[in-house]
Amino acid sequence: MSEVDASDRYVIGVDFGTLSGRALVVRVRDGAELGTAVHEYRRGVIETALPDGGPPLPPDWALQDPDDYRDVLRHAVPAALADAGVDPSRVVGIGTDFTACTVLPTLADGTPLCETPELRDRPHAWVKLWKHHAAQPHADRINALAAERGEPWLGRYGGKISAEWQFAKGLQILEEDPEVYRRAERFVEAADWIVWQLCGAETRNVCTAGYKGIRQDGRYPSSDYLAALDPGFADFVTKLDGPLLPLGARAGTLSARAAAWTGLPEGIAVAAGNVDAHVTAAAAQALRPGRLVAIMGTSTCHVLNGTHPAEVPGMCGVVDGGISPGAWGFEAGQSGVGDIFGWFVRHAAPAGFDSHEQLTEAAAAQPVGAHGLVALDWWNGNRSLLVNHDLSGMVVGLTLATRPPDVYRALLEATAYGTRMIVEAFAQAGVPVDDLVVAGGLTSNRLLMQIYADVTNRPLSIIGSAQGPALGSAIHAAVAAGAYPTIHEASDAMGRIDEAVYRPVPENVRAYDALYAEYRALHDHFGRGANDVMLRLRAIRNAAVDAAADRTAATLEVVG
Amino acid sequence: MSEVDASDRYVIGVDFGTLSGRALVVRVRDGAELGTAVHEYRRGVIETALPDGGPPLPPDWALQDPDDYRDVLRHAVPAALADAGVDPSRVVGIGTDFTACTVLPTLADGTPLCETPELRDRPHAWVKLWKHHAAQPHADRINALAAERGEPWLGRYGGKISAEWQFAKGLQILEEDPEVYRRAERFVEAADWIVWQLCGAETRNVCTAGYKGIRQDGRYPSSDYLAALDPGFADFVTKLDGPLLPLGARAGTLSARAAAWTGLPEGIAVAAGNVDAHVTAAAAQALRPGRLVAIMGTSTCHVLNGTHPAEVPGMCGVVDGGISPGAWGFEAGQSGVGDIFGWFVRHAAPAGFDSHEQLTEAAAAQPVGAHGLVALDWWNGNRSLLVNHDLSGMVVGLTLATRPPDVYRALLEATAYGTRMIVEAFAQAGVPVDDLVVAGGLTSNRLLMQIYADVTNRPLSIIGSAQGPALGSAIHAAVAAGAYPTIHEASDAMGRIDEAVYRPVPENVRAYDALYAEYRALHDHFGRGANDVMLRLRAIRNAAVDAAADRTAATLEVVG
Repeated sequence: MSEVDASDRYVIGVDFGTLSGRALVVRVRDGAELGTAVHEYRRGVIETALPDGGPPLPPDWALQDPDDYRDVLRHAVPAALADAGVDPSRVVGIGTDFTACTVLPTLADGTPLCETPELRDRPHAWVKLWKHHAAQPHADRINALAAERGEPWLGRYGGKISAEWQFAKGLQILEEDPEVYRRAERFVEAADWIVWQLCGAETRNVCTAGYKGIRQDGRYPSSDYLAALDPGFADFVTKLDGPLLPLGARAGTLSARAAAWTGLPEGIAVAAGNVDAHVTAAAAQALRPGRLVAIMGTSTCHVLNGTHPAEVPGMCGVVDGGISPGAWGFEAGQSGVGDIFGWFVRHAAPAGFDSHEQLTEAAAAQPVGAHGLVALDWWNGNRSLLVNHDLSGMVVGLTLATRPPDVYRALLEATAYGTRMIVEAFAQAGVPVDDLVVAGGLTSNRLLMQIYADVTNRPLSIIGSAQGPALGSAIHAAVAAGAYPTIHEASDAMGRIDEAVYRPVPENVRAYDALYAEYRALHDHFGRGANDVMLRLRAIRNAAVDAAADRTAATLEVVG
Repeated sequence: MSEVDASDRYVIGVDFGTLSGRALVVRVRDGAELGTAVHEYRRGVIETALPDGGPPLPPDWALQDPDDYRDVLRHAVPAALADAGVDPSRVVGIGTDFTACTVLPTLADGTPLCETPELRDRPHAWVKLWKHHAAQPHADRINALAAERGEPWLGRYGGKISAEWQFAKGLQILEEDPEVYRRAERFVEAADWIVWQLCGAETRNVCTAGYKGIRQDGRYPSSDYLAALDPGFADFVTKLDGPLLPLGARAGTLSARAAAWTGLPEGIAVAAGNVDAHVTAAAAQALRPGRLVAIMGTSTCHVLNGTHPAEVPGMCGVVDGGISPGAWGFEAGQSGVGDIFGWFVRHAAPAGFDSHEQLTEAAAAQPVGAHGLVALDWWNGNRSLLVNHDLSGMVVGLTLATRPPDVYRALLEATAYGTRMIVEAFAQAGVPVDDLVVAGGLTSNRLLMQIYADVTNRPLSIIGSAQGPALGSAIHAAVAAGAYPTIHEASDAMGRIDEAVYRPVPENVRAYDALYAEYRALHDHFGRGANDVMLRLRAIRNAAVDAAADRTAATLEVVG
C-alpha cells in the first residue's frame, strides 16, 4: 500500500474488453494504481443463438448484451474502490475505453433496440462485437464502389475499410433486417454508448468516429455515395452524427443513476469515449510522434502519432487527433500474434515441449538463423499491408533435424518480420518510426522482445503498467476532470514506461536482415498475386467441407 | 506349417540391410516361406570412430565391418533352417541381395583391406556404406567434368551421379588416402563381395555395375576422362572390372568354407549378387514393363522395367538387364517418406495425437482437400527430379483451425505427389507406368495406400510377402540352381502379389488433380531456381551453427 495523503484525489479508468470489464483506481498526482477489479460478462460473446433462444446465428456472427457493460459499472467499479480502500468522495472523474468497432442500434434516448420487447428476438437489434465478421460482402461492396468513384477518404484507410466497421455493419442491418434499421434512431459505438449511460448525454469521440466511422476532414461519406450503395442507406450518417468531442474532453457529469450503480459521487467528470489500443498510448508515455506502440496479445494493434496525414498501404487508418489532440494518429495491426504461439503450444508441440516456457528457454539458446526456417505469420490472415483474411500461414526450411523450439522461434520471428513490414511501410510513406513501445500480455517473453528489437533494429521500451488501457482511461478522466490541462501532461505525470529495455544487438540485426529479406520475398510472392495458392487452398477447403456437410444433410434426410 | 513333401527342394534368400541381415527358407515349387531369422550387425553403422578407437570420423561418414556380413551367414542362415525345420540337404541354392552402393577395397583374393593388420586403423580401408555422404565434393567434380565433356553415360543417370556411388567413393579414397587406394587391388560392391565369400570366385553383377558403377553399353567411363579428374584415377576401372554376370546367373557353387559357416551342402548353386530394391521386383511378380515397384520405408526406391532406354530427368539410372534380363531397368527414388511421418509423430504431434494410428484414423475421416494444406516433402532433400539434398520441407495453408491430423495427412499426400512427379517424368520420357506395386513397411497404412492410388490415378497392388527382398533373393537362387529357366518363370511361380487392392476413386482423383497442381507449382518455384530460399536458409543455418561452435571452441581455449 502506498502512503495516503488526505489531499489526494483519484480517478477511475474502466476498460471494456471482449469477455470482461476492468475498473482501476488511480491516484491523480502520480498515476499510482491503488485497486482494481474485473467483472466477467454474463453473456460473453453471443455466437450461436440469442440468450432467450431462437434460431441459430449464422457463421461469423458475434453479438453482445449491452447490459453486461452496465454490470461492469455496477460490480467492478465498487469492487475496485473497495480494493483500493479509497473514499469514493475523493474520486473526481471516470474514463472508459472499449473494444472497437463494437456498435449498437438504439432509440433516440440511447435505449438499445435489443432491450425493446418487440425487437429482443431480432439478432440485428443486439450489439455487434468488433469480431462480428458477417458483413464482409457489405464491406467488399463499400470498398469496390469507393474505389470506383474515387472517394477521397479511401486512402486514409490504406485503401480498404474493414468488415468490422460501422458502415459495413450498418449496411448489413439495412439489407438483412430493414425494420431494425428503420427503428434504429441512433447507431452508436459502445465506446460512446457507455459514456451516454454514465452521463445521460449522447456524445461521439473523434477516435471511433474517425477510425470506425469514416469521418475525415470534418465529413462522413456523402449521402450520394451511400445512396449508390443502397438507396435506403442514404440517411445512415444521420444515425451516426452527434456532438463530437476530442479525446480527453469532458462528455458530461456522472448522472444520479450511474452514481447509484458505481457508488461514485454524482456530478464528477465523465471523459469522452475511447478505444482500448489508442488509450494505451497515453498510459505508456508514447504520444510523441515516432513512437510506435504495439499492444501485443492474441493479435497486435499498432498506434503511432505523426505530424501530418499520410497514406500508408494496408494501415487501418489515420485520424486527426485520433490518439491525442494535435497529432495525426495512425493505426495498423497484425491479425495473428499470440494466437499463433498458443496454437503451436496446443496443436503442434509434443509432450515435453508443450509450454511457452520450455519452448522459449530452448529457443533462446539458439544463435539467430540456426534453425534454418522462415515462416509467414498468416495463421489468421493478414490485416497489415495485404489486408486479406484468406491468406494463411506457411513454414519453409523443415528438415528431419527440425525440433519444436526451432519452429516456435521461427513463429516468434515471423510476427516480428510482420511488424517490420509495417514499420517500413510507415517509413516509406514519410511517417518515421523511431522506437517501439510494447504493451500487453506478451511483454513478459524476454526472447520475443529481444527478437523484435533485433528484427526492427530499434530500441524497445515496455509499458510500466500491467493495466495499460485502464490506466490510459484514468489519465483521460484526470484531464476531463481538469486535473491536467492536456493528455500529454497527464501522460507525463501518470503514465509509466521502462525506456529502451531491449536494444538491438548489431550482430543479430545483420543476421535478421538476411532472414527478413527471405520473409519479404515470400510475403510478396504469396501475398501479392504471383501465386495465390493460399486463396485456392482455402476455396478447396471450404468446398470440401461444404460438400461433406451437404452429403451428411442428404443422408440425414433420407434416413429421417 | 504347410504340408511337407519329401521331394520338395528349398532355396535360401539372404537380405543384407543397413543394420542386420535376414535369411529366409523358401520352397522352390511355390515360394512358400518356411522359416526366417535375423542377425543384427555387431558394429552396426560406424559413424563416430573405428571399432578399435582412433580419431573421430568426419561428418557424413558411414562405414561397416565386413565380418558382420559373414556373421549373418554364420548365424541367420542356420537359424532360419532350424526355424523352417527343413533338412539342409534339400537346399539347392542360395541367393543374396545387399544395400547399394555399399563398397569396399580388397586384396586380389577378396580380403578386405581393413582386415589387413597394417591398414586396420585407416578409415578408408573399411566398407563404405551406401549412406556414407562424405564424397559429395568428389561427385560434384565427376558430374561437372562429365557435363563439360559431354560424357555419353551421364544421361543414363538423369544427368547426375550420386555421391553414394563407386566412382565418388573411389575418388575420395584416392585423394584422401592414396596408400589405401594403391593397395586396393579390387574395389568391390558388398553385393558381389558376399557372393565371392560364398563361392570363392570373384564376379560382378550387371545391376550394381550399371547403377552404381557407371557401366553402360559394355563400357565403363574412359580412362581419359578419369585421368582428367585426377591422373591417379585413370586406372580405377581395372579395380572394378571382373567376370560380369546377368541377374539370376550362377556365380559359382558353395565353397567348403561357406558350407561350414551356413550348414548348407557344399556345391549348391550361389546366385549372382543383387540389390535389395531390385530383387524385390521378382518377389512382387512385377517384372512386366510398366509396373512400377515402390519399396516404401523411411525412404522410397522405385524400380520399373521398360522396353527401351530413355533419359528421365533426375532418375537414379537406367541399366540394360538391371532388374531382369531382357528389359531396361529404371531406378528412381524419394529421399524422405516414412522418415517424415516418423518425424511428425515424434517432433510435431501433441500428446493425444502422437501415434501413426491415431493420426491416420482422424486423417482418414477427412474429405480430400478439407485440411486446406499442401506440403513439399523435402525434409530429407529431393533425390527425385531435382537431385538436391539441400532442399527442405515446407507446409502452406496453416491456420488457427489446423489440427495435427490435417498436417499428417498433408505429409502423406506430399509424398504421393512426389511419386506422381516421378511417374509423370517417366511417362513424358516415353516410359509408361501402368500401375504401381508397393512393397515395404508402409503397405500396412491403408489410408496412405488409397492416397497413392488416388493421387497417381493408377491401381495399386501390394506385394504378398513381408520379406520381399529375401524372397526375391530366394527366387534368384532357384534360377541359379536351374529349378526355373528364367527369373520371370520363377517369379510367376514363387512371387506373390495382391492385385489392385486399391483402386483410384474418381472423385478423389479429381480433387487431387487440383492439389497436385499446387504441389507442382511450388515444386518448380522452390526447386528450380525461382526462389532458392531453401538453399540460402541452409547456408545461413550452417554458418550460424559453425560460428557458434567456433565461439565455443575459442571460449574453451581461453578458459583452458
